[in-house]
Amino acid sequence: MNLVLLEEADFEEAAASLASLADGAPRHVVLTGRRLLHLRTVHRAEQGRELRVGLIDGRVGSGVVETIDAERARLRVTLTEPPPAKLDFTLLLSLPRPKTLRRVLQMAATLGIPHLVLMNSWRVEKSYWKSPQLHSAALREQLLLGLEQGGDTVVPQVELQRLLVPFLRDEIEGVARGERLIAHPSATTPCPRHVDGPLTLALGPEGGFLAEEVELFERHGFTPVSLGARLLRVEQAVPALVGRLT
Amino acid sequence: MNLVLLEEADFEEAAASLASLADGAPRHVVLTGRRLLHLRTVHRAEQGRELRVGLIDGRVGSGVVETIDAERARLRVTLTEPPPAKLDFTLLLSLPRPKTLRRVLQMAATLGIPHLVLMNSWRVEKSYWKSPQLHSAALREQLLLGLEQGGDTVVPQVELQRLLVPFLRDEIEGVARGERLIAHPSATTPCPRHVDGPLTLALGPEGGFLAEEVELFERHGFTPVSLGARLLRVEQAVPALVGRLT
Repeated sequence: MNLVLLEEADFEEAAASLASLADGAPRHVVLTGRRLLHLRTVHRAEQGRELRVGLIDGRVGSGVVETIDAERARLRVTLTEPPPAKLDFTLLLSLPRPKTLRRVLQMAATLGIPHLVLMNSWRVEKSYWKSPQLHSAALREQLLLGLEQGGDTVVPQVELQRLLVPFLRDEIEGVARGERLIAHPSATTPCPRHVDGPLTLALGPEGGFLAEEVELFERHGFTPVSLGARLLRVEQAVPALVGRLT
Repeated sequence: MNLVLLEEADFEEAAASLASLADGAPRHVVLTGRRLLHLRTVHRAEQGRELRVGLIDGRVGSGVVETIDAERARLRVTLTEPPPAKLDFTLLLSLPRPKTLRRVLQMAATLGIPHLVLMNSWRVEKSYWKSPQLHSAALREQLLLGLEQGGDTVVPQVELQRLLVPFLRDEIEGVARGERLIAHPSATTPCPRHVDGPLTLALGPEGGFLAEEVELFERHGFTPVSLGARLLRVEQAVPALVGRLT
């Protein structure tokens, strides 16, 4: 937790809106539960300790611990800076297994990916779509953990697309921004480096896309590109592709 | 397991040396234990199925299942191709917590990092050095899993350096190849892209290197570079840096 994420409800002062909290004036928050535990056990925070804090979907700044005990921590916070810029990157990802999904959600938030589409493809196991990890509260929990790691406050948009063909036919034009790439190990074009401007990347499931699926993406303007002979796990491929492409 | 890794002992034919197995002539292996289980439950391999196989530290090729049951699988293997090229990349990594270490070892092998130095630094918890994950058999187990994912056979070299100052003073000249970089969030130089030629990268622990440690690396020719405002977890930073630098 490199940044303590705050919700409006944490503030002692009545806040008319998120906007009114962004004026840089000091205010007070009370933290309990997971965040208190983290402050006590990991940060070993005591009175006077200054921590990096941020308001969800708002500004970042500093929080000074005024009191802390087993029940609650009270911090005086000043929110002065905008959060770090997001990447201009849309990730279309075949739904991974639930355990991997949690890591990928955190990672997407940490890396600054603003828009993640979890989509179906032939080799996605049907049972993955029934995972409680796809409930919006569970998605948000993982995204917030990732934001706390990356020092960001702006919750990425996550979209579920359970049907690949209609998604590409009816919605891709509204979703895909900029250059369109699909990662495919047997592509002959190497993945480009440092693409300027917006970018949309489709990444397949374990075992990869079917050739027919790659062709479908190609018909919608996606170029198949390869990362080389080595097959990476999804949670390795996402940061490797972000590192290479952005 | 995108490639089934074979050991010399798996071969029915008496093999004088690893070299004698690399002539491309078909031979037979018998698999039991973890690899058999994986063939049966994940690959659902039956008689006649062709799989990608490779001899540890040797060639890759194909293996055709001749018989398979609950006790053993017998494959006819032909090893014809060299394994994929390694990166020209030396990673000096502050020893992570054991759970992260397992993932980083697998990842290093999958990504094609040939040489990994696990080193001490101020913020590495002393207890991590006592982890059974550092025993050579445990290290090798994780490296082999990573090789099987990446389709490689050549086991990366892993070195333990429990004392940072003597390591840098006495051994760094023999270890570091090419350009020397140290990842440090507050560096003013952005991390370069696509460095041609050999590269040595130092990556700190959770919480980062001390300023004094960064200065020590600088005195040994390392340039501090930043990946930007976002703080990545080690298992995200390694592939992101490999993707960007190579």
